[in-house]
Amino acid sequence: MVAYWYCPRCGFREDFDKAYYWKCPRCGSPLKIVFEGRYEVSKEKGLARYKTLLPLTPLKYIGEGSTPLVKSVENGVEVWFKLEYLNPSGSFKDRGTSLALTYARKMGFKTVVDDSSGNTAISISLYSHIYGLKPIMFIPRTAPEGKKRMLRFLGAELYESVDRGAASRDVVDFVEKNPGVFYVAHTWSYFYILGAATIAYEVFEEAGVPDYVIAPIGSGGLILGLAQGFKTLLEQALTTKMPKIIGVQGYSVQPVSIALKGIETPGEASDLADGIMVPNPPRLTEIVDAIRESQGDVYLVGNSEIRSACNKLVEEGFLVEPTSAAPYAVLEKLKQKIQGKTVLIPLTGSGLKIIH
Amino acid sequence: MVAYWYCPRCGFREDFDKAYYWKCPRCGSPLKIVFEGRYEVSKEKGLARYKTLLPLTPLKYIGEGSTPLVKSVENGVEVWFKLEYLNPSGSFKDRGTSLALTYARKMGFKTVVDDSSGNTAISISLYSHIYGLKPIMFIPRTAPEGKKRMLRFLGAELYESVDRGAASRDVVDFVEKNPGVFYVAHTWSYFYILGAATIAYEVFEEAGVPDYVIAPIGSGGLILGLAQGFKTLLEQALTTKMPKIIGVQGYSVQPVSIALKGIETPGEASDLADGIMVPNPPRLTEIVDAIRESQGDVYLVGNSEIRSACNKLVEEGFLVEPTSAAPYAVLEKLKQKIQGKTVLIPLTGSGLKIIH
Repeated sequence: MVAYWYCPRCGFREDFDKAYYWKCPRCGSPLKIVFEGRYEVSKEKGLARYKTLLPLTPLKYIGEGSTPLVKSVENGVEVWFKLEYLNPSGSFKDRGTSLALTYARKMGFKTVVDDSSGNTAISISLYSHIYGLKPIMFIPRTAPEGKKRMLRFLGAELYESVDRGAASRDVVDFVEKNPGVFYVAHTWSYFYILGAATIAYEVFEEAGVPDYVIAPIGSGGLILGLAQGFKTLLEQALTTKMPKIIGVQGYSVQPVSIALKGIETPGEASDLADGIMVPNPPRLTEIVDAIRESQGDVYLVGNSEIRSACNKLVEEGFLVEPTSAAPYAVLEKLKQKIQGKTVLIPLTGSGLKIIH
Repeated sequence: MVAYWYCPRCGFREDFDKAYYWKCPRCGSPLKIVFEGRYEVSKEKGLARYKTLLPLTPLKYIGEGSTPLVKSVENGVEVWFKLEYLNPSGSFKDRGTSLALTYARKMGFKTVVDDSSGNTAISISLYSHIYGLKPIMFIPRTAPEGKKRMLRFLGAELYESVDRGAASRDVVDFVEKNPGVFYVAHTWSYFYILGAATIAYEVFEEAGVPDYVIAPIGSGGLILGLAQGFKTLLEQALTTKMPKIIGVQGYSVQPVSIALKGIETPGEASDLADGIMVPNPPRLTEIVDAIRESQGDVYLVGNSEIRSACNKLVEEGFLVEPTSAAPYAVLEKLKQKIQGKTVLIPLTGSGLKIIH
């Protein structure tokens, strides 16, 4: 497959197989990977099932993808829960990681670096083993001891920065000084968007296109991938329907909401949903465009709504982390408006990681 | 479907739909559920896929079953890893639990009781929600605080006994005083055997019958279910092959090994594999018979082998708890003998629960 890196902002373009860029080397914007592909379903497992819509096929399979879809009618709304927390490391990030690290391996890298102490860090550390890579994680010194132990158990080398912001700066310094390492840069990475698009393909194959998608927005990889996945199906005339994309943020950190509405909306703290506390998503404009184009919206939630949604999900048998429950809290607000509609809610991260 | 409770020891027999017995009310032996069924694959999800081989179909589906099968050639042996730790509560127990609690619900029970602080307790507590049941768990006072928190988060009422043995006695006292509660009695339960048999059906449907199965033995539900599942396929002439069943115990607690070999085998402590430390499995004779009939064997492992196997599994991308790694430690010992053979290893429990 012919694929290339492409910067929509400045027009930079380079062969995908030639060199790796975590951002545009000319203007510093997030890059896309552009390629041609037709939707086809192969007999292979994992993301390889949709390899004709990917610029590269994962070299290994350890159980990622093909997650269960559970349908449930709730207050007149047909909810399709996609159990992404049953991926190998307990989150949907495994999809993007399997693509990013396959690429790193193919390009001859030996070391992968990222700034995360959450689901992405666990995912990258696990997948590093199967791709023969050494993981280095920049994390805030204040990250919970349990998470540090988990990452060390998974073989990650930890560099502790003063706080989350410092971790993001320190990792860039490190990468500049060590040009031979693969900086995953998951908040920038197009691999995580491509990975999330495979969720849309699986849902389409099994159940069709929903009327709505409600998903959390951290760096936006999930929502951009879902939007792109369903858009690809529409463009290829496999459906005539595009779901409305409803993004979910917390009141504490709401950059997409501000960008969309032009104003900050006050509300309760939302730090329970730590997975979506990303103050400056590199792809902010893209996220806003994708939501607008789908005629969607952004909703905000606070801790009490998140806690209540998390408990309700457990009552339905879904053991997820609080961040994953945020979209379910939004369903509660939306249900009167969307009676009789179908709604896809990806449940992103496992509760087994955090409840101890 | 006509099904009945049956005691192979004393011949007791009673309609399955009439009353519940956790053991034979006449002689106190473990019971079977006997019914006729032909192997057929339905389009339904979860265990309902094989509902013609079950005496009842789960009323709800929250993602159990259809777990990934990952093939890997290791030192000349083709290993089929069945990722049972990607079940909803992080272990294969969810299969049996979905059957047991469906039955409890259908029979009108309101409360379920069990003596477990491990995977079964988590599984029962999670599934209790979806079946509208109240879970009560008898656990040793010494169980880790993290497990107690997890069970409380899942809504379980905890009764703390002096130690594991006391928990098993206290639960029986409680059940005798409260005849209206459903005592799961997972170490006795035939539901967990039927649940584990569906692993064999899934493996058969996807890959055929392996030459060997290597699986941990705690109370024996897993190994009895696998043996019975493959035997059913053989009896129904869907295959001419029966795998050799290799059971795995730890040196510290080795009742099946002693029963099979007639002598205790000394070796290193094995308390890392806490999930298989069951000193008196109620179905001991059945387990020994199933292994003998398949021309299988029992192997013992110690902590250093378990630790090393657990680390090797993580290197292959399988994030499991130590108990789950015990069969992989046995593969290491067996590999010279079984060159060119296929070996099914169910990976039973998630590492996300324990590494913090």
